[in-house]
Amino acid sequence: MNKYKQVIVVNAGLLLPPGKMAAQVAHAAVAAMLNADPDVVESWLDDGMAKIVLQVSSEMELLTLYKRIEAERLPVEAIRDAGRTVVSAGTLTCIGIGPAPVNKIDALTGQLKLLG
Amino acid sequence: MNKYKQVIVVNAGLLLPPGKMAAQVAHAAVAAMLNADPDVVESWLDDGMAKIVLQVSSEMELLTLYKRIEAERLPVEAIRDAGRTVVSAGTLTCIGIGPAPVNKIDALTGQLKLLG
Repeated sequence: MNKYKQVIVVNAGLLLPPGKMAAQVAHAAVAAMLNADPDVVESWLDDGMAKIVLQVSSEMELLTLYKRIEAERLPVEAIRDAGRTVVSAGTLTCIGIGPAPVNKIDALTGQLKLLG
Repeated sequence: MNKYKQVIVVNAGLLLPPGKMAAQVAHAAVAAMLNADPDVVESWLDDGMAKIVLQVSSEMELLTLYKRIEAERLPVEAIRDAGRTVVSAGTLTCIGIGPAPVNKIDALTGQLKLLG
């Protein structure tokens, strides 16, 4: 059982093409990791960097979740698209959370659906 | 114009669900970054961490590309799935390249298609 994990939550309502969404998820993973506790990051990396991608259906839901996570002082990063291609500039595409303790992340994201 | 970029190349032949593939792409982005030159990484992060997701259609193609990139001494990481869910354990899902100079990466991956 992993002690730490990272969760990326995407705004599935944007219906981004899979490759575009994957790049946004990767941005979120890197940005959230850089913002996390270095000791936690090291342990998480050693342990196979557990990572899961979940979804919400709107930017509003994603923003609400972001604020709840921030209030709990977990490391979180919001990714906004530069808007050169598929969506308008500044569109919130996903948020990256952690790595952080599994139980703390689950308390905030445990009810969300996997991105299929 | 960015000086550095990161490219993730996925094995689209696996037909992974988008969320599963996004998590693999994020693994590759993190792993390749940790393997890259720290000064390059810093410059790339400051400059918005340019990242693009390309595709090949088979594991064989991906392995061949991996070896060519390794031979050119660019930072590259192969991601193999733990195989708990969708694919067999050890399946090569994607490779992460860089961040590295745009021209060097383009010379090796410029002919590949975007993951749609």
